[in-house]
Formats: sequence, C-alpha cells, structure tokens
Amino acid sequence: MIRTHSFRGVMAGFATSALALAVSAQAFAGTVSTDGADLVIKTKGGLEVGTTDKAFSFKIGGRIQADADSFDGFYTKNGNRADESYLRRARLEISGVAYTDWSYTFARNFGDTGTKDNWNEASISYDGWKPVQISVGRINPTFGLEEAVSSKWITAIERSAIYDLAPWLNSHEDGEGIRLRSTFADMFHAEVGGYRQDGNQDEDGQNNTTFVARGVFAPIVQDKQVLHFGLNYATREVEAGFSDSIKSRLSVRGTSEDTINGNRGTFGGAKLDGTDQAWGAEAAYMMGPFSIQGEYLTRTADGDAVANGNDNDLEASGYNVQVAYTLTGESRSYKLDGGKFDKIKPSDKKLGAWEVFYRYDDITVDESAIAPSNAGLLGLTFDTAEASAQTHTVGVNWYVNEAVKISANYLNTSVDDIVNANGDDDGDAISLRAQYVF
Amino acid sequence: MIRTHSFRGVMAGFATSALALAVSAQAFAGTVSTDGADLVIKTKGGLEVGTTDKAFSFKIGGRIQADADSFDGFYTKNGNRADESYLRRARLEISGVAYTDWSYTFARNFGDTGTKDNWNEASISYDGWKPVQISVGRINPTFGLEEAVSSKWITAIERSAIYDLAPWLNSHEDGEGIRLRSTFADMFHAEVGGYRQDGNQDEDGQNNTTFVARGVFAPIVQDKQVLHFGLNYATREVEAGFSDSIKSRLSVRGTSEDTINGNRGTFGGAKLDGTDQAWGAEAAYMMGPFSIQGEYLTRTADGDAVANGNDNDLEASGYNVQVAYTLTGESRSYKLDGGKFDKIKPSDKKLGAWEVFYRYDDITVDESAIAPSNAGLLGLTFDTAEASAQTHTVGVNWYVNEAVKISANYLNTSVDDIVNANGDDDGDAISLRAQYVF
Amino acid sequence: MIRTHSFRGVMAGFATSALALAVSAQAFAGTVSTDGADLVIKTKGGLEVGTTDKAFSFKIGGRIQADADSFDGFYTKNGNRADESYLRRARLEISGVAYTDWSYTFARNFGDTGTKDNWNEASISYDGWKPVQISVGRINPTFGLEEAVSSKWITAIERSAIYDLAPWLNSHEDGEGIRLRSTFADMFHAEVGGYRQDGNQDEDGQNNTTFVARGVFAPIVQDKQVLHFGLNYATREVEAGFSDSIKSRLSVRGTSEDTINGNRGTFGGAKLDGTDQAWGAEAAYMMGPFSIQGEYLTRTADGDAVANGNDNDLEASGYNVQVAYTLTGESRSYKLDGGKFDKIKPSDKKLGAWEVFYRYDDITVDESAIAPSNAGLLGLTFDTAEASAQTHTVGVNWYVNEAVKISANYLNTSVDDIVNANGDDDGDAISLRAQYVF
Repeated sequence: MIRTHSFRGVMAGFATSALALAVSAQAFAGTVSTDGADLVIKTKGGLEVGTTDKAFSFKIGGRIQADADSFDGFYTKNGNRADESYLRRARLEISGVAYTDWSYTFARNFGDTGTKDNWNEASISYDGWKPVQISVGRINPTFGLEEAVSSKWITAIERSAIYDLAPWLNSHEDGEGIRLRSTFADMFHAEVGGYRQDGNQDEDGQNNTTFVARGVFAPIVQDKQVLHFGLNYATREVEAGFSDSIKSRLSVRGTSEDTINGNRGTFGGAKLDGTDQAWGAEAAYMMGPFSIQGEYLTRTADGDAVANGNDNDLEASGYNVQVAYTLTGESRSYKLDGGKFDKIKPSDKKLGAWEVFYRYDDITVDESAIAPSNAGLLGLTFDTAEASAQTHTVGVNWYVNEAVKISANYLNTSVDDIVNANGDDDGDAISLRAQYVF
Repeated sequence: MIRTHSFRGVMAGFATSALALAVSAQAFAGTVSTDGADLVIKTKGGLEVGTTDKAFSFKIGGRIQADADSFDGFYTKNGNRADESYLRRARLEISGVAYTDWSYTFARNFGDTGTKDNWNEASISYDGWKPVQISVGRINPTFGLEEAVSSKWITAIERSAIYDLAPWLNSHEDGEGIRLRSTFADMFHAEVGGYRQDGNQDEDGQNNTTFVARGVFAPIVQDKQVLHFGLNYATREVEAGFSDSIKSRLSVRGTSEDTINGNRGTFGGAKLDGTDQAWGAEAAYMMGPFSIQGEYLTRTADGDAVANGNDNDLEASGYNVQVAYTLTGESRSYKLDGGKFDKIKPSDKKLGAWEVFYRYDDITVDESAIAPSNAGLLGLTFDTAEASAQTHTVGVNWYVNEAVKISANYLNTSVDDIVNANGDDDGDAISLRAQYVF
Repeated sequence: MIRTHSFRGVMAGFATSALALAVSAQAFAGTVSTDGADLVIKTKGGLEVGTTDKAFSFKIGGRIQADADSFDGFYTKNGNRADESYLRRARLEISGVAYTDWSYTFARNFGDTGTKDNWNEASISYDGWKPVQISVGRINPTFGLEEAVSSKWITAIERSAIYDLAPWLNSHEDGEGIRLRSTFADMFHAEVGGYRQDGNQDEDGQNNTTFVARGVFAPIVQDKQVLHFGLNYATREVEAGFSDSIKSRLSVRGTSEDTINGNRGTFGGAKLDGTDQAWGAEAAYMMGPFSIQGEYLTRTADGDAVANGNDNDLEASGYNVQVAYTLTGESRSYKLDGGKFDKIKPSDKKLGAWEVFYRYDDITVDESAIAPSNAGLLGLTFDTAEASAQTHTVGVNWYVNEAVKISANYLNTSVDDIVNANGDDDGDAISLRAQYVF
C-alpha cells in the first residue's frame, strides 16, 4: 500500500534523478478514480460511497442480534424453566440518494421472526421540500419514544410491554403508507402518516387507513444534556367483526420463539367495529451519564355491540419509567431528527462504555370482551376480567465499540387476574444479546 | 482513466518551495488505491466498481415499485370497488464480471409475490464466443416485445394481458435453462433457449424442455428514430393430464394481491397431452417523442383426448397496440442488444420527462375444455364458451430523473362470455406506482 | 475532500511546458478519497474494501451453483430414469471487520433448499485473543475433512454419504452456538463448540447442547506437499422419544429435489433417549498434482428402551477414500486455518486446470429400531435389518479460472438389505454443476 500524495522530494539544481526514483516507488499499486463527480468512500464494517456534492450515494450495512433467553413461571406454559436462543434480527440495510433530493431504503430482515417483520422498510423519499421529507412505500409508523429509537440502541434488550397493547401503532403490517416528517427550529420534530395496513379491510377488499402522528418538543438538545417531550396520536377505523386480542410477551421474546413452553398470555380482546385509537405521551431528561425517561399509552377501541349485551369495547393503558447511567461517563447521543436517543460512543477504546439501567413497565387491560388466558383457573367471571402486569427490568450494556454491543437483562414480572396454564402469576427471565452493527 | 502518480515533470532552478506547498495541501484525506489493475468506481444510488481493462467488475443495485390499485366490476368478485396497495417488486440485483469473459447475475425479488417470482435470475454467462453469449442457470425466457422490456421501463404499469394466455413463455417456473443470445450486423438480435421448467415432468420425474426463440430485425436504430420487427416461437411437450388454465389479471395486479375481493377470471383451460406451442409477432416504430407498437400472440395446445369425446384442445390468441408520446420531447431509448426499449432520460432536470400513452389489449380463448368462470350465470353451454376481453389503458408517466418514475394508469375492461360472481362483464381500475431504480 | 491531482507548482527554468502536458492528461476523471485511514479496494467479481491498517473492512460476494442430475434404479422410487435441474446454492456472503478484532459474517442461501439451509452463517467473532477466535451466533459446526472444505472447493459435486449418518454434526439446525477456533505452531488447528440446535429440547422447552470438536495435525504444509490428520468427536443428549432416522441421498441431491420420483432411502432409525455421539478420523496426503484422502465416521445413539424389548439403539458407521489428480499439474491449495483444502488456481489462463478423481463411499447402519425402507419387499425381518450402501464416484473438474468451475460426476451405488419401491438395489447417476464464485 502506498500513498498517492507522497511526493516529498527536494529538488535543487539538477535533481532529476532523485525525482525519477520517487515516482517509481509508486508503481506497484493501481489507482482508483471515478468518471463523474468526486467520490468519498468509507468502511466501518459496512460500506458507504458518496459524491462530495451529496448528489449521489450508496450505503450497505446491517445488524446481527444473536439472543438467548431463560425464563420460567408466567413466561412459560407449565411454569418450569425454559430457554431459547435465536437470531433476533439479521437485517440487511441498503440505502442511497440519487439526484440530491431522492432517496430510498431497502431494509430487509432475515432473522427468526414472523412474516410481518420481514421488511423493516422499503421506501422512496423526497427531500426537496425542506424541512419536510415525504416518504412512500412499506414504512413503519412511529408511536412512542422507545419505538422511535432504533432496535440497535434501545437501552433494554426488548422494548416496553406497553407497545403490546396496540402493535398496529408501530407496524406496517405488510401494507404501504405515506409519511411526512420534519425537524425544524432546532427543537421540534414531527411525523404524520397514513398507512394502509394489510388485514384491516372491508368485505369489498377496501383497506382502511391508519393515521399515526408524533410530535416532539426538545427545548434542550446538547451533547451532555437533553430535555425531550413528545405526544402521539393514532386512529383507525375497523370493520364489524375485526377481531383483536392483546397478547404481551412482557419484554421476553423467547416466550414466542419457544413454541414448546413459551407463554404469551392473552390479556384481553374483542371483536371490534368502529374507531380504534391511542394516545401517548413521553418525556425524557438526560444530564451527562444519567438519563430518565417515561412513556404513557392508552388505547380505546369500539366493540361490536351487536354480538353481546355488553358494549364490547377494548380499553387498555400502560406506562413505563426508565433510569440509565453510564458508568464510564459517556452521555447517550440524541438526534432531534427522529426525536430519539441513539448510540453511546465509548470514549475509552480499550474499556468500551458500560451502562446500567432499570425500567418499570405497567400494563392494564381495563375493559375487554373476552376473559384473559386461563381466567377459569382463577375462578374469574367476565366482569372482573381486568388483567394487568408489572415488569421490572434491570440490565447492563457493554458498548465494546461502535459496532459491538453485549447486553444482559434480568426481568421479573407479576400479573393480576391472569395466569399461565400452571396457575403462575409471576415469572422471571434472563436475556442475553450479542449485537454487531455494520 | 488516469494515473494519480504520473508526475514526471523535470524541475530545474529553485522551484523547491512552491512544490512543497502544493503537496502539503493534500494531506488531510486518506487515499484509496487498489492492489491490481486500475479501478473506476461510481454511484448513481447503487454501486459499480470495475477495472479499467474490463476484466473484473461488480455491480449492486435494485428496484422498488410501490403500487396501489383501485378497481371494481369484473376486476372484483362482488362488483363493488376494492383497493390494494402492495410492494410490486423489491428486487436486489447483483452482477459482475471475472476474467473478462465470465459474468454472473444474482437478481432476487423480495416483493409481495408468489414463490415463482422470487428469483428474477441466477445465472452464469460466457461472453467469449462473440457475438454469441451463452448463459446457464435460472433464467427467464423472452417472448414478445413488452416482455423484453425491463419491468422498470415498460410504458404501462403492468404488461399486456396477452402474456396471461401462456405464462410459461416468459417464466423460468423455478427451473433452469440454457440460453444463447446474439446481436450482430447492427440490426439483428436473436435469442434461443431450452428451459427445464419445474412442474412439467413425467411420472418418472423427467422434466420436459421448453424451447423459446425470439428474433429481432431493426432496420432503423437511431437515437430519435427506431423501426423494429420481431418474431417469437415457443414449444413444449406436456404429459398426459397436465392441467393448465388461462387466468388473466387484465393488467391489474391488485386482482390477485387482494385476496378478499380481487377477481382473476378463468378464461379457459384443459387437461393437456402433447404439444403446447405459441407464435408471436411484434412491430414498433418510434419517431422523436412519438412511438407506436403492437404485438400478436397465438397459442395452441393439444388436449388430453382420452378424457372426453371432444379433442379438448386449448387455443387462445391476443394482440395489443400502444401509442405513446413524450410531452417534454424526449425519445424513448432503444437497445438492439435485447431488442427492447429502455428508459427515457429527462432532458430538463427540473421538470423531468412526461409521457402519455394509450394501449389496447384484446385476448380471446378460442377453444377450451372447461367453461369460463361463472359461465353458469350466463346460461352458457360448453360449446359457446369462448371467453374474451378487451382492455383500454391510458396513462401518464413522470420520469422525475433517471432513478425515479411516478406512474398513473386508468384501465377499462369489458369481457364476453365470462362474468364475475356478481354477473359483471366490465370493470375499471386506477393503478398508481412509485418506482425507484438504484 | 481533496484532489489527488492538484499539483500546480510553479516551475522555473524551461521545464514548464513539459509538465503542463503531463498534468492536463489527468483532468478528465474525478477523484476517489476517504475521510479516514487509507483504503484499498478490489474486485474479482465481488467487492472488497478495507483500510490498510486492517482495522476495518467490508466484503460482499457469493456463489451460484446450477446443478442438473440424471439418475435411476435405487436413486428413484420406480426405478426408471429421472432427472432434475435446480439451484443448488445461491448464496450471498457479506462479512467485515470493525475495530481490528471484531468481525461478522452474514451468509444467506437463497437456493432451492429447505429452511434449515437458509442461513449458512450469521455470526459475530472476536479475534483479540490470538491465536484463539471466539464466535457466537448461527454457526455450523465442523466434523470431518470434506465438511471442513467449502462447498465451492470440494472435489466431488456432493459430499460423501457418511455425513448422512448424522446430519446434526455439521448443521446449526436453526439454532445458535458458541465456537472456539485456533491455529497454532504452524501445524495444529482445533475447533470446539457448543450448539443449541433447534428441535432438540425437552418438554419444558429447554434446549440440549450439542458439542462438536475437531483437531487437525498437519506435519507437512507446503505448496506442493501436504500431510494432514484429523480427529473429530461430537456428543449430544436427546430427550425420551426424540425420533431420528438415517436417510441418505447417496451423494445425489436430485433424489430429494425431485419430489415425483426421487428416492432418499431410510437406512434405519429409532426413537432415542440418552446420549447420541460420533467419532471421526481423517487423513490426507498431497504430493504435487496428486492427492489421496480418507475419512471414517461412527455414530452410536441410545435408544428409548421403554418402547420395546430391544434396546433400540441406533448405530451406524461409514468411510470414504478419494484419489484426485490434476492433469494440468497444479496442486490443490491447503489452509491450515480451517484444516482444509481450498481452490485449485489454474496456472494456464487459457486452458484452466483439469482435475480427475475417484471416491469410494461405504455406509452401514449396524443397528436400528426400525426396518429400512421397503424391507418388506426383501422379506427381511427386523433382526436382519442392517442396511448398507457402497457408492463409486468418478468425476472431472474444470477450473476455468478462479471464479468458474464446471464439474461432471458419474456415480454408481449398490445397497444391501434395502431397496426402493420397485425392488432395485443399485442405481447410477450423472451430476453436472456450473459454479460461479464472486
């Protein structure tokens, strides 16, 4: 390997022969050029190539998350300890820009997940109406702070159980959507979109549109201090007879990966007809290595009253609070564009960054047209079927470098008015993850 | 292509200090070199890297087509308006060259389609017997002008219904093939191949070979004027009892993507035994921004006479005519290598190129061993069961730039001797597409 | 971003005009630079980019193997000749390094295979504890010499039938594992790993761990001479009732790709309970263009004695011997890191390298709790059900260049105490492969 700019000869008088020598030393490597605008190329494990005028670019990267869980009690069917190791995400992400204002994202998951998760995003965006970006295609809506944060950089291994109360808030559901995003005035971020989620259609095959909006106000955005507030709203119409149930993994993915003994309890459900909507609020404060954040989410869905004397509504709510502290002193990074926290960059290259955290999750199905799983074991009647769960998560993250993150979480959950087939109303779990981002 | 180390000047006098200055200005960026032959690298959203001697190259790109359809009448089951949005194609395309004469294509689709469409192509080609290229692997045959044109650059959103009369003409059907292609004398292009399509095999598991040939004669190939003629022939043997039916989407893909209410009518079918063959003819003329093109296709397949007093043959034919006009004045591009039209490159970078077109499709199943879908509703007897359809398509394409194309089509179809479950014999549709080619 | 060709010094004396000429010749191409450490980029059909200090790199490549088989007798169900063409492997392989010691592999197969083969590897490795590499994720264990060799560079088209005696020895089985590898003292290579293979779990969903170890001692490792010895051991516990059967393709993949008439005979099987273990030994000697190698494998698995008066154990063993000769004189390459043979690099660029080989495989199921396929046709009783097969393979490989390999194999097999549905106890096959490595 040679330097192309290493000509450092000192010429004087008749220095010709010295020059010839310097040139010949460069002869053993080929050159790399482009036939258009100047390019910059770089690799940090993945690859990025772009013109210096930002008109064109190409990027390829991805993530591997190899997970292992061990869990018992309510997290299982029979109460005995189960375990499962699986490829949580193995995602290939290609994106690029052409003609300055047009970009695309081609992000496909190949991990051990259901078909709904196969596409993270396949979209086309126009960035010419600054500060507004408009995108179309297979896009996930964003509702809530933890969902705004990339799965690479969330603090816990899995997101809060509150999102299990309404998965449609953050999923394209194999459909397509149009989304507007904007970041402005150095303190605001907003996103609003309409999504034609697959599955939510009438008897004529006409899809209903799901609308999701999120607004962020961040009065303090500094490297070492952040103050963040957010509001979320989502609504969709569903046709008579649309059946929905609330099944939570309580932040342990292995409960659905382990088909033998994993338990993903049904906390409630109903046949819906009418409006299904959700509100969310979020707040976060970061000061140096310390951060605290919390979210609240509530959902109300109109029941199909024809089938029952009851109104059959489905109502649920939940909240979480998380405190995190980086032992090695780094602050979490924050991006106003997206209204989200991002990676922690280790300052000590040998030690990496070490972070500890605690999160509390609380979910409640307030009203349901069906009884929770195994309610019969509890002798519950329909009227008292108000299932809830409280989950404590403590964990440690080792950010080895900007590519590798190793995580360990311990979770303890207790549930009310719902049990597993063995009658357990609590359980605990250990989750491990090795993550590589390229 | 240039060398970065070609400084061979001869210095004399006291030029030393000026030279040193110029060199130091280059110190703040890293260099990029190669350890073999000189390379050229470029991005237009995707990525291409190749040696300047053409011996080796690598290319990665793809296409995203996000579609939405709204349709009623015969396009649906119950006659009421349905809609569907879906990822028509999300294709990753990798190709390259090694040792000058050997190339490969690895083009995989990840869109919302059946398994037969998962691979566009996985092939190995030898280019050393110029002007003949020989390819082997999973390859789609080419039969007809619209099929020769890439799905990225066809004028209408979907190809003509005539190809629904014999899908095997243009599909690898999850099998493998060998193909010879040649372009010569600046006016001829020919392609001939043998394909072992999956599914067409005898009771011993021996596959039959499908032969497809296409010859193109283009006496005028200029930037602003093209005159093109083509002939196509295909034949295959099928075993006794091979069941085939002709089901057309009539150029609205949503009819099969919408599983609730989409209607893809069966125009005919038969249990075959013997020879299944097709002829096609095509012609096109382009003059500046205007082009006109037409195709004719006819298929005759021997029926399994044992099962019925009738000869049980399957015979069908169809044709289409299309006129297109580019409002902004650009001509369509044409590639003799492939005998096909290609993209329109906008001359005005702000406005893009705008194209309008009209296409007429006519398909008829002349002879069939089974009655068309819902023929009973029409009181049809078997003898009169000669189903046909006429489809009018008008549309506009906005070639925003060489990467992005936005399309809108309106289709109106009317059918004879076939109806949907509601008795409808016509229908109309609107199709929209956002396309990004990287 | 800087220009690499910005030399604009001011020359004195009369050298000015000669210099100006040299510089102007460089003006028509754009420059390529990086904003960090110096990069080297190269393509041989795929793409590699890395920093010259080896801290970061990215590589994308893959393989296409288009195969065709023709086979009869025992290789089929009805004894008549069948054929099948299929995409044996179409693999996309991405890998990279970040921060010197951390690497990843993202190798996904898209060929015509079952789901267990979809991932070749999705793993994260740490290389900082030299000479030990530790890897975690979806990894295939390695047991045996032919399995150590990449499917790109094995001598025969398919590996020996001995591996069909215990597929779990070399498959991640959709699970995850941890593996240690080391190469040291210029003559030793060792690999040991624990793998949580999917499917092998108890009634509580707890996975059992499979342990696989391989040690290689290669006292001679030279370009033209290699002496190689290896030992392999693997063990796993299985739960009561774990059902396993030994089904061999006898090195003809088409027997399972052809669902109509392909025959993959069941040589034995049992419901297991307890320890399932295997031993293997391997040796190879290469001298110039000649090489000879052999392997032995034996498996013993504890039967579920409860179900039967018999102990129900499953015992099987097999061996193979292969001689190969490169007509064009090249030696096979050998990598101690991996304890494996690798590609043959043609020395004559026009002719390529030509290799011929013969391999003999012998497998026997010594003890089984179930009778082999169609044992009834032979009038066999359970006690005599000791099925075996001997397979002769001769073949020729044309290494056209380092990217392309064309192979043809003829196989002849004869079986004992097992027949196909037609009563055949022998069969032969021709296999063809076109391979492109990018």
